[in-house]
Amino acid sequence: MKRDDAQVLEGSAMRPSAAGPAGLARAEAVLPARLSLEARGVRRMLAALGDPPIEMKLWNGETVYAGTGPAVAGIRIANRSALFGLLVNPDLYFGDAYSKGTLAVEGDLVKLLEMIYRGQAKAPPPKGLRRILGWFQRPRPNTPSGSHENIQRHYDLGNDFYRLWLDREMLYTCAYFPKPDATLEGAQLAKMDLVCRKLRLRPEESVIEAGCGWGALALHMTTRYGVRVRAFNISREQIDWARSRARELRVEHRVEFIEDDYRNISGRCDAFVSVGMLEHVGREQYADLGRVIDRTVESGGRGLLHSIGQDRPSLLNPWIESRIFPGAYPPTLRELMEVLEPWPFSVLDVENLRLHYALTLEHWLRRFEDARERVRAQYGESFVRTWRLYLAGSLAAFNTGKLHLFQVVFARASSNDVPWTRAYLYDKGK
Amino acid sequence: MKRDDAQVLEGSAMRPSAAGPAGLARAEAVLPARLSLEARGVRRMLAALGDPPIEMKLWNGETVYAGTGPAVAGIRIANRSALFGLLVNPDLYFGDAYSKGTLAVEGDLVKLLEMIYRGQAKAPPPKGLRRILGWFQRPRPNTPSGSHENIQRHYDLGNDFYRLWLDREMLYTCAYFPKPDATLEGAQLAKMDLVCRKLRLRPEESVIEAGCGWGALALHMTTRYGVRVRAFNISREQIDWARSRARELRVEHRVEFIEDDYRNISGRCDAFVSVGMLEHVGREQYADLGRVIDRTVESGGRGLLHSIGQDRPSLLNPWIESRIFPGAYPPTLRELMEVLEPWPFSVLDVENLRLHYALTLEHWLRRFEDARERVRAQYGESFVRTWRLYLAGSLAAFNTGKLHLFQVVFARASSNDVPWTRAYLYDKGK
Repeated sequence: MKRDDAQVLEGSAMRPSAAGPAGLARAEAVLPARLSLEARGVRRMLAALGDPPIEMKLWNGETVYAGTGPAVAGIRIANRSALFGLLVNPDLYFGDAYSKGTLAVEGDLVKLLEMIYRGQAKAPPPKGLRRILGWFQRPRPNTPSGSHENIQRHYDLGNDFYRLWLDREMLYTCAYFPKPDATLEGAQLAKMDLVCRKLRLRPEESVIEAGCGWGALALHMTTRYGVRVRAFNISREQIDWARSRARELRVEHRVEFIEDDYRNISGRCDAFVSVGMLEHVGREQYADLGRVIDRTVESGGRGLLHSIGQDRPSLLNPWIESRIFPGAYPPTLRELMEVLEPWPFSVLDVENLRLHYALTLEHWLRRFEDARERVRAQYGESFVRTWRLYLAGSLAAFNTGKLHLFQVVFARASSNDVPWTRAYLYDKGK
Repeated sequence: MKRDDAQVLEGSAMRPSAAGPAGLARAEAVLPARLSLEARGVRRMLAALGDPPIEMKLWNGETVYAGTGPAVAGIRIANRSALFGLLVNPDLYFGDAYSKGTLAVEGDLVKLLEMIYRGQAKAPPPKGLRRILGWFQRPRPNTPSGSHENIQRHYDLGNDFYRLWLDREMLYTCAYFPKPDATLEGAQLAKMDLVCRKLRLRPEESVIEAGCGWGALALHMTTRYGVRVRAFNISREQIDWARSRARELRVEHRVEFIEDDYRNISGRCDAFVSVGMLEHVGREQYADLGRVIDRTVESGGRGLLHSIGQDRPSLLNPWIESRIFPGAYPPTLRELMEVLEPWPFSVLDVENLRLHYALTLEHWLRRFEDARERVRAQYGESFVRTWRLYLAGSLAAFNTGKLHLFQVVFARASSNDVPWTRAYLYDKGK
């Protein structure tokens, strides 16, 4: 990414500091009084992050570095307004400035973001102005019409865009890599199989899927496990794609793609599954979702929720929430339980697939970079930078434990038809 | 158990009703006005449970049955005072009357309790007097001195008593049966191995165990996995036993058994483990326990909590809480997360071993019945009946999903040294 970022701040000479930033840090330590007000603000910001090995270069030529050892990455800030945003609300304006190109990153973007996230994890919670700003950054409400708008904004960008960097089956959720060197296509297939096996699908059973994306899992369940599926999604583009895939595979009589909100799911099923929807549902709606699952799942039924989560309650990065995923909130495992606990369900199994999501994102980011010229031609440079930052930031978040991925298997509380152990999931025979 | 129970109500003729209770039900339906006030109370009680196939016989010769089909079990009530307790607070006085012998069970005690639990699960929450009584049945406080008293009451009954029916290694927690036909000894070994493998113990690592029982797991970890262990327990009898076992095995320099409360745990460790203690800790102390784990676990460390739990928050059966396990409370998974969520830990894995506890209890109950003459000789008939009801009731509770068993694996949030998948737990090679 180095070369790419270097082009952003037009005209400015952005070279890796060959002399090494440790030298700069010394120079700065000797002459602190000569730092401008702006540079002193930058120093405070770095100090709050535990002085990571990140070199900050300002438009006026000043460089701030307080890390120990050589710098791992650099940030260049093009003007005072970009710096001001960064100092006031770095979580939001880092992304905006990066998208606009008024902030450029030198070196490995993912590593840089990981250092920032690790610093934030150790830092005390925000105070004063930042906390107040936090109040304005509540996730967007997920009323049925709000959800529709929130989802359209992201998923209806165009199937052609996602085809450029997703796997063949268009799965836009965490894959499962039986070994780290599996391909992305193989890992997405393995994920679908893992989900189906956790659900113990049997031929002719009925499945309801909430939030079916481009339909890959619904089609996989139908064609490989012989079940009948009713799959819900509020993204028109995705539903159209899924229906045409069902026709191609001649299973349109076995799998029904329904353009509707999860709150309107009707009918009964043996298995309820939702992969990558809960993080868009919003915590206020967990009771609604639980009610839907309860009125849907038969007495011997079971289900699986697959969702991004986190260790401790905290709003999603405000830039991601406002620019990428409006209304999104990744629950802690405790919060996730609020979906199921009010209803007669038992949790059988929870698996944290955090590092699998990091690896999935590594694949996506690499493919995205490979396709960036085509993305740029169609959507422009700022769009490329926005999506790069979103993918790199998500990768860094999963790598540093800022985000997690929970797969929760549950069954009707009254049912003893549950697996004796989990060994069957790992049987080589199957 | 039929024969045994038949002896309890001395002098009364307790024969299975050969004619079948369906006939009785019809007779009763024809002549409802002739039922006494007491019998009508019994009818209401059965109706609240959904009219299970349980035949109730009163001291005055009246029989109440409202189930469909033949009765599966019967309850005989010896006098008005036993019935009064049962009507006012069945959860508490069923047990007391059973212990005293003023209530006898005909047929399979476990099946009978399962029917009652299934009926209760479907019934609306208690109202009026029962709810008020519920307020007086809060678990006993678990202050350090309270915990000491609560634990002594149960665990210091005498090692000789537990030796009569526990496995050879004296594990008094849920076993893990790789196959349902494993022996209890084999399943307890498999449980300890499962715990050690989930913790990924490496030679020379340090482990802290909170609530170590008779020391079996601590000794297993030391002798089989080469770790050093500091194991805490407040039961003097158990600690003495564990120390003498350590000397026998010549590992007293590798495993230290400490007679102290978990709140006083000091020092650091690579792995923190607690099997069967959390249910005695009480929810008010979860923050304390979390603080202990946080100050104990090293930065690359991990831990495992193994605890009885439940689907929805509800007090433990008051008879169990007051007569068997003072201060005990089985958390829901959501509540269990309150231990870990405030601290920098990530949950990696949750497994529900409910049916394994049911099977463990089947073994215990069978062994207990085999040893009942020796127990009776030493502790008396009422003690035998109390313990039979406790074991049978627990078995029924796990079989019906009233209780669960959660194994929760966690690690330091900052650590990426976590298993790639869970397949290694099921490797035949190991």
